Amino acid sequence: MIRDGQRVLLIHDGKEYYVRAGNGTLSTDKGIIDLNVLMDATPGETIETHLGIPFYIRIPRPTDFFSHARRTGAPMLPKDIGMVCALTGMNRNDDVLDAGTGSGIASIFFGGIAKSVRTFEIREEFAKVCRKNIEEAGLENVEVVAGDMLDAEGSFDVVHLDLQITEAHIHHAHALLRPGGYLATYTPFLEQTFIVMDTAEPLFTDVVCHELIGRELTRTKRGTRPSTRVSHSGYITVARKE
Amino acid sequence: MIRDGQRVLLIHDGKEYYVRAGNGTLSTDKGIIDLNVLMDATPGETIETHLGIPFYIRIPRPTDFFSHARRTGAPMLPKDIGMVCALTGMNRNDDVLDAGTGSGIASIFFGGIAKSVRTFEIREEFAKVCRKNIEEAGLENVEVVAGDMLDAEGSFDVVHLDLQITEAHIHHAHALLRPGGYLATYTPFLEQTFIVMDTAEPLFTDVVCHELIGRELTRTKRGTRPSTRVSHSGYITVARKE
Amino acid sequence: MIRDGQRVLLIHDGKEYYVRAGNGTLSTDKGIIDLNVLMDATPGETIETHLGIPFYIRIPRPTDFFSHARRTGAPMLPKDIGMVCALTGMNRNDDVLDAGTGSGIASIFFGGIAKSVRTFEIREEFAKVCRKNIEEAGLENVEVVAGDMLDAEGSFDVVHLDLQITEAHIHHAHALLRPGGYLATYTPFLEQTFIVMDTAEPLFTDVVCHELIGRELTRTKRGTRPSTRVSHSGYITVARKE
Amino acid sequence: MIRDGQRVLLIHDGKEYYVRAGNGTLSTDKGIIDLNVLMDATPGETIETHLGIPFYIRIPRPTDFFSHARRTGAPMLPKDIGMVCALTGMNRNDDVLDAGTGSGIASIFFGGIAKSVRTFEIREEFAKVCRKNIEEAGLENVEVVAGDMLDAEGSFDVVHLDLQITEAHIHHAHALLRPGGYLATYTPFLEQTFIVMDTAEPLFTDVVCHELIGRELTRTKRGTRPSTRVSHSGYITVARKE
Repeated sequence: MIRDGQRVLLIHDGKEYYVRAGNGTLSTDKGIIDLNVLMDATPGETIETHLGIPFYIRIPRPTDFFSHARRTGAPMLPKDIGMVCALTGMNRNDDVLDAGTGSGIASIFFGGIAKSVRTFEIREEFAKVCRKNIEEAGLENVEVVAGDMLDAEGSFDVVHLDLQITEAHIHHAHALLRPGGYLATYTPFLEQTFIVMDTAEPLFTDVVCHELIGRELTRTKRGTRPSTRVSHSGYITVARKE
Repeated sequence: MIRDGQRVLLIHDGKEYYVRAGNGTLSTDKGIIDLNVLMDATPGETIETHLGIPFYIRIPRPTDFFSHARRTGAPMLPKDIGMVCALTGMNRNDDVLDAGTGSGIASIFFGGIAKSVRTFEIREEFAKVCRKNIEEAGLENVEVVAGDMLDAEGSFDVVHLDLQITEAHIHHAHALLRPGGYLATYTPFLEQTFIVMDTAEPLFTDVVCHELIGRELTRTKRGTRPSTRVSHSGYITVARKE
Repeated sequence: MIRDGQRVLLIHDGKEYYVRAGNGTLSTDKGIIDLNVLMDATPGETIETHLGIPFYIRIPRPTDFFSHARRTGAPMLPKDIGMVCALTGMNRNDDVLDAGTGSGIASIFFGGIAKSVRTFEIREEFAKVCRKNIEEAGLENVEVVAGDMLDAEGSFDVVHLDLQITEAHIHHAHALLRPGGYLATYTPFLEQTFIVMDTAEPLFTDVVCHELIGRELTRTKRGTRPSTRVSHSGYITVARKE
Repeated sequence: MIRDGQRVLLIHDGKEYYVRAGNGTLSTDKGIIDLNVLMDATPGETIETHLGIPFYIRIPRPTDFFSHARRTGAPMLPKDIGMVCALTGMNRNDDVLDAGTGSGIASIFFGGIAKSVRTFEIREEFAKVCRKNIEEAGLENVEVVAGDMLDAEGSFDVVHLDLQITEAHIHHAHALLRPGGYLATYTPFLEQTFIVMDTAEPLFTDVVCHELIGRELTRTKRGTRPSTRVSHSGYITVARKE
């Protein structure tokens, strides 16, 4: 069930090791683990070090890839990825086009939900990192394309764009979407957000731009208060094709 | 592909009709449509009224059920449902336990993502509404239980609670979760949120309480500004089982 | 101490009457009060109706004028007025120029703090309302000018603008300010805010644009939560003259 | 006009020096300034170094004391001080009682507005710092009391509390206030805020708890966006005495 090259978490005593199944070993202060053995192991069970110490085997969840996967830059935050999923109603029947892949964190979340994800990353070296992350996540329904989303073909239920957006991207997204499908864009700056809103308005129905201000509530002996760590990150504009 | 009793959107000229396939008719100013015919029809194609006017057939997305499904009270907002999905990394491999179903809107979103959803609603009449909504959404992987989540058995990857929460709920959620799985609670009031945080703290790792303040950006001829429509709704606390 | 034409609050049993001292009477279900008598009365004491029922005499505070004064449109909210006062450090030594007076609510707050306030309102009929409100507030240090702020002369410690702003307003504000003085602008829309920031940047030091999102905390038997009544209102940009 | 011991800003070429008039000298790379000479100088004019280089003389504003004055801990932020001033309508006619003085920053803002300020600081060493700051600000209407606010006597238009609050503080504030006067409390934690709200509710009218989330808008060549520097700091509860 675990494939060669797939990422696995090995857990012992509250410590997590993010390893790759296959040739290689993990050295810990509790002994050495042969990572080849993982391919015969069952997630949820344990594997032993050469000293006989058991380590728990866990298949990483998308949230683990957010923490551990190799990054090419700051990935979208889960709260923003969650907004895209919820506001488009992304589900198992969907073909999703994603562009501006970066390290592929959002693609990993989408890939765990949708029927298929095709993700475009114009920078070859980023596409390489993403492809590696996707492969390590064991997601066979995600295809990484090193190229320009403006060259994309096909038809999709959701188009998600996280890139230096232009009017052309919005027009092409519209052309690629099936009726009833959604465009969702992530734009950190207001100027880009205005381009999205103005271009989408006459093409789509229900163009709505969302801003999410996220905070954590902290609870200590001194008392409870919102943390001052804030997470404004960008604007998410959602538009539906009629 | 469309089953008897399943909900379908019929669309003509920007107007949406939320109908049920099977016995019955839809009367419009463009003529009458026999809804039995939908069971032989293909989503994405059209169906004609008795006057020969074509209506487009669309399978509703979770966002459509949020707009159209029968409600028993105020459902969770998509932004909050999205937070739960993203912060738990909900995906196709997951068995999800949901409790405090209400009309089942969150269950419809979860059901489109997870392998299985078992949702508990203690009020019989709400469970009935939910069961109807789930059936109309054509989701065969969602089971509605008219009963108390404290009686739930089995093991799950995600437990989501949106109910009058007590310490017992948190303890039972912990017992039901697989290692690495997530509890996510939705609590509108601070007092309930404190119960969740305090009970979860010694049981789980990474207990984090999130507050999302959502706004829309409005863009008119007069200018662009955040709308004053706000959407604080509740606190989402996420905790992971080690 | 109370002057002819000045506003006074008469209070009985939790009910407030916002009256004008001088010729006239107040009729209540507890009897009639001759408002001429107020000019000999002392705030903090009582006055009796013809039936001998005592009413408490109170000089209105700026917050009372916010509630009771005649309005020409939506006035600035106290939270925004407070931001202007605090971020400019407005105090008793200041000469303040205000423009875009409207009904003069902000001027009433400023007038209670600064040495002098000169406020410009280009619409004659608004200036009239404002002049009446200022007079009724008994503020002798506030001068209402029915005219264009671009014609203003003199030198000021604080310039506050709440109007359809142009680059010329920013330049003229700079010319009117004393070294160390502050410009504060209130702009509801982002486009105007950009004009302010871009024009002020090369002229002033410490140009900072603030956005305040205000909420109330509500506490009922069901529990405590942030109200969903929000009060984003506009952007306040503060800039200092070197 | 400048008194012995008073703080003055000396400005040259965009650089500010926060000095004390009286015995002593300021050494700069443009030469030395005899600070005794300041007592004969006029704010708004210049003073020369021994090398004949002119430095501009400026009387600090409250905002300058926020930046420069000696601190005993984190002072209230201007946005919160502004809220207190605006929501109480603080003005030149007011006698203000302040407690939990700290380094006296809020007192400096209040002292520039109100007729009189009496501020209580229970920690002797903090009171000393505050007294020094107030003296250097040249505010003769602010009295610093090293003592417990619960021992305060007199009558006031505004009571402002920024301390470890108890029910007794609220009750005593009520006793000290004149009718129509305001209590304003600043509490960083929710638990304290609940004490304030619950105690004030039956005593006062119009008990409202405000939360201010402040952000700055940043505008660079890359674009415009809200900064992620946030400034939640505490809850401000305002209540009025009938």
